[in-house]
Amino acid sequence: MRSVGVVVPQTMHFAEPLRLQSGAQLADYTLVYETYGTLNADASNAVLVCHALNASHHVAGEHADQPGSTGWWDNLVGPGKPLDTERFFVIGINNPGSCFGSTGPMHTNPATGQPYGADFPVVTVEDWVDAQARLVERLGIRQLAAVVGGSLGGMQALAWTLRHTDKLRHCVAVATAPSLSAQNIAFNEVARRAIITDPDFHGGHFYAHGVVPKRGLRVARMIGHITYLSDDSMEAKFGRELRDNKLGYSTQDIEFQIESYLRYQGDKFSEYFDANTYLLITRALDYFDPARAFGGDLSAAFKVAREKKFLVVSFTTDWRFSPARSREIVKALVHNRVDVSYAEIEAPHGHDAFLLEDPRYHGVMRAYFERMT
Amino acid sequence: MRSVGVVVPQTMHFAEPLRLQSGAQLADYTLVYETYGTLNADASNAVLVCHALNASHHVAGEHADQPGSTGWWDNLVGPGKPLDTERFFVIGINNPGSCFGSTGPMHTNPATGQPYGADFPVVTVEDWVDAQARLVERLGIRQLAAVVGGSLGGMQALAWTLRHTDKLRHCVAVATAPSLSAQNIAFNEVARRAIITDPDFHGGHFYAHGVVPKRGLRVARMIGHITYLSDDSMEAKFGRELRDNKLGYSTQDIEFQIESYLRYQGDKFSEYFDANTYLLITRALDYFDPARAFGGDLSAAFKVAREKKFLVVSFTTDWRFSPARSREIVKALVHNRVDVSYAEIEAPHGHDAFLLEDPRYHGVMRAYFERMT
Repeated sequence: MRSVGVVVPQTMHFAEPLRLQSGAQLADYTLVYETYGTLNADASNAVLVCHALNASHHVAGEHADQPGSTGWWDNLVGPGKPLDTERFFVIGINNPGSCFGSTGPMHTNPATGQPYGADFPVVTVEDWVDAQARLVERLGIRQLAAVVGGSLGGMQALAWTLRHTDKLRHCVAVATAPSLSAQNIAFNEVARRAIITDPDFHGGHFYAHGVVPKRGLRVARMIGHITYLSDDSMEAKFGRELRDNKLGYSTQDIEFQIESYLRYQGDKFSEYFDANTYLLITRALDYFDPARAFGGDLSAAFKVAREKKFLVVSFTTDWRFSPARSREIVKALVHNRVDVSYAEIEAPHGHDAFLLEDPRYHGVMRAYFERMT
Repeated sequence: MRSVGVVVPQTMHFAEPLRLQSGAQLADYTLVYETYGTLNADASNAVLVCHALNASHHVAGEHADQPGSTGWWDNLVGPGKPLDTERFFVIGINNPGSCFGSTGPMHTNPATGQPYGADFPVVTVEDWVDAQARLVERLGIRQLAAVVGGSLGGMQALAWTLRHTDKLRHCVAVATAPSLSAQNIAFNEVARRAIITDPDFHGGHFYAHGVVPKRGLRVARMIGHITYLSDDSMEAKFGRELRDNKLGYSTQDIEFQIESYLRYQGDKFSEYFDANTYLLITRALDYFDPARAFGGDLSAAFKVAREKKFLVVSFTTDWRFSPARSREIVKALVHNRVDVSYAEIEAPHGHDAFLLEDPRYHGVMRAYFERMT
């Protein structure tokens, strides 16, 4: 199948402040986005793709003169692909607080003339969705055909049905959860502590010191990677394989291939990801909990979305956002007699499966988009 | 049931060097140990208890004038308890490399006159077992009734049957594994990186700088704690409970009770545990793999132990050392027609269950020790 080809990121500036869940507000801000395919005459074929922790507006295609810059969901989005850009007009938006172009902690705080740093306001899934809704409106789209996302992106897709109910018809929520579990929060907290206690973090104002808390970012990423993979896939990929075919009897050198892999992933991540963004995004994950306002009753939370249509997808070996969590969503929807399809895909890859090209998974996605009205 | 009461740790010095698996040797060294109960006339009632990562020789009873100094397996070991000190003479030994009294990285390296620090030789489960065997011999015990351990302690119990086969009759291996999985090694590696990259680690020679790499130790302990508890028990204990009943919208302050718990555990640990010991013990865990010398054939490894008797115990919600890993041990033993009892205990507490007083678990242990000959 073909790719959408070379794409050019666009920017949109918003002069009106964004009121946030915390009570604070983001003064003026810029969002970076990309689009693929063509908006039809009545603007009824638009699909918004929401990104997760380590991704951006760059969903599909390549950036000019940047080999290897393929979008993060390129296997799903393109001409003839499950989310077919010959039929749909697909939008990817980078969320505020991110480090991939939209206004974030490394940008200038108008109140101080210095980078926001740790003073960037805490943003939530709901805030992101509100920011996305403004951009969608400005593009002349009154109602999206669908909002789609995996993991944290799936939470945004769910939030759309609750906050901007009339502005979408379908919600596609993949490998996600109605809230983080205590264990999920615990992993996030360890990653945050690693970053915050790195002396190079400087209370979040490291930009002024010309340093980056790389040690903390590395540890955060290594923890993340463990939770993205299933125990089995890690075992199949690395097992107990040694790097040098014999034990070196060292506590500091690399002995096992899995160590080499994790260190590499950590190093790479610390070169490009922003520490304040990591804190903000993990907090947005922690906070998402639409049932909270309804005394923990998720069915009550989804009552407002009962006219929407849903596809919920989970993966059997995903222990970060297990199928049981997706079933909670499905149960709450069914309780409201909502039109919901649910697929539990048998896949060995853990949470990462939502980014991979599993034929059964992509078959389900393709079928859903094909019959989408 | 009564406690063994006040106990006094003892020390034993070994002038003859201990040859290690790595080829290095530990010149002279001291082991700290405790005993409970009375050795019988023919020295046939001795049971050795091996400790795991964060424990020591102090298995049962209390130290004088130290309230709260109860031994780590006091619920199992004592008069009338499952491992009954009215019948058995129980020995706890602190392993070399530890930070609880036996020769370790904070002690003087005879070669330099300075603390060993990172130069303390890398020790393995096999090395520990060899050191323990010497102490047991010096106590006048030619054959132990049993060697017992949970987690890393269970690995030592298994290693006894392979290295000192004639010196024990029974092996009781609880919540353990025949080797770490890739995921287990991955968690260890993240913890080690957190410690090693803490600027206060000073390449393992922090003693000379009057500092302790507490940041790294805290992160290491937080990661550890997540893996000791089951997802469900963490959910039951903490769930999404907030500390202050409302969101504070902060990435750095504590919002959820689970964060408060983890930070507390990390802080406490960093006050008393040694960073070099953490590295050494996690490496000993990584390396343990008796099947390696037999091309991965665990059955072949256990052939030498076919005259021994085994009790293997696992816990359903232990995802660190899952029942599947215990079943690998059982399968290898059964293949050798070894006398093995296996109990898979339905318990909600994850890996920590081996330290707790579950009636079914303790029932199994009691029954096994009662009929022990």
